[in-house]
Amino acid sequence: MSGWLAVAGLGPGAQALITPEVTAALDEATDIIGYAPYVARVADRPGLTRHPSDNRVELDRAAHALTLASQGHRVVVASSGDPGVFAMASALFEALESGPDHWRAVDIRILPGITAMLAAAARAGAPLGHDFCAINLSDNLKPWPLIERRLRLAVQADFAMAFYNPRSLSRPEGFARTLGILRETCEAGRLILFARAVSTPQEELHITTLDRATPEMADMRTMVIVGSSRTRMINRPSGPILYTPRWAE
Amino acid sequence: MSGWLAVAGLGPGAQALITPEVTAALDEATDIIGYAPYVARVADRPGLTRHPSDNRVELDRAAHALTLASQGHRVVVASSGDPGVFAMASALFEALESGPDHWRAVDIRILPGITAMLAAAARAGAPLGHDFCAINLSDNLKPWPLIERRLRLAVQADFAMAFYNPRSLSRPEGFARTLGILRETCEAGRLILFARAVSTPQEELHITTLDRATPEMADMRTMVIVGSSRTRMINRPSGPILYTPRWAE
Repeated sequence: MSGWLAVAGLGPGAQALITPEVTAALDEATDIIGYAPYVARVADRPGLTRHPSDNRVELDRAAHALTLASQGHRVVVASSGDPGVFAMASALFEALESGPDHWRAVDIRILPGITAMLAAAARAGAPLGHDFCAINLSDNLKPWPLIERRLRLAVQADFAMAFYNPRSLSRPEGFARTLGILRETCEAGRLILFARAVSTPQEELHITTLDRATPEMADMRTMVIVGSSRTRMINRPSGPILYTPRWAE
Repeated sequence: MSGWLAVAGLGPGAQALITPEVTAALDEATDIIGYAPYVARVADRPGLTRHPSDNRVELDRAAHALTLASQGHRVVVASSGDPGVFAMASALFEALESGPDHWRAVDIRILPGITAMLAAAARAGAPLGHDFCAINLSDNLKPWPLIERRLRLAVQADFAMAFYNPRSLSRPEGFARTLGILRETCEAGRLILFARAVSTPQEELHITTLDRATPEMADMRTMVIVGSSRTRMINRPSGPILYTPRWAE
């Protein structure tokens, strides 16, 4: 059996942020599987079969990939950002664990990519330069009280906080609740970065403070980074820099 | 003035994990500055001046880079992993904030890279596939009681935890204390990954449980990832997979 399965991180959007390892896997693949907008980011070529799918069918997609690879195909599952951060890698292993035994013989590799929080942080400066946490604000797969508990503990720990999936059309209220919890627990001047569609032509960066932040500043394509109590802003003629010093007291 | 300064993430070690954006910056640079082992990872060529320096001189290195760039040089500060995660980006902005005003006119870019925790996670499976935190265990720049407080809160939040700089020759006791706190607060079977020199010829991966973990399993080149209470292991003929499911209760 010469098949394999690579779950590949395409990064936040720009071609220049895709690793050579991922490019090589895409060049060798017979099949590419993924959420349609991610599959669309990969150029078509003879010998490559494209399997775009809808959002929220991660387990079906994983089963499809494992089935094809176990039949000898060379399969890339395309993931945005890094596949291991709120993306396809965990879904693949959920499918593997509950699937047929012969799937465990499949050659599986996870190919890391530039995840959204690190791309956004780099554009703004270095807000994640000290201890930090990453929280998926979607309550599709976990209950809201658990998210709230984590937020409160993260503030107590004085982590900088990177929020994935802050807001969607189907769940507009979660991010408003998040801002409410932060207003209860952090100072009004706490710095917040809203980074939309980083590294694409639609990129927009907005740095503000907690008292001025509104739920509408985030959408599905926005990464939100809330600084720790020590995060600072440097003003420059060409625009501000947001960063967290390395040291703390 | 045509100078610029790019703080570039060289990733964990393998050439195939360096983004094309970073490669392009290295190709255009007149000067490369950084900790000697990172500068050594960049091929020499005519027109490139190399400025290797010792560890723990981050602010001097940053000032040197800002001075050269403000004089018109095209400067790359080489960082391992991602420059924004426990690396050179924050040090650069500390120097910028306290330095002469004309430094604020320098064209500065942070070029993201594959940070150690994501490279290690990808090799082992997907242990960071749910909410997680990243903590620098070095107490060079923050007091141990703050690290301890963060560890206890991170366990309460049930984050998976990625530990950078777990252990050095000059501070051998910090990681032993960390394991002690985890033993007080987590179940004995909590899964832990020790990932050493990921993506290099010296790469070693070791998955164990908290009751079997010892301080000697980590050194300066080791990334430690402690799973959340939900992190699981899948056994396969070719080796185990460590992953955290996307969902929680």
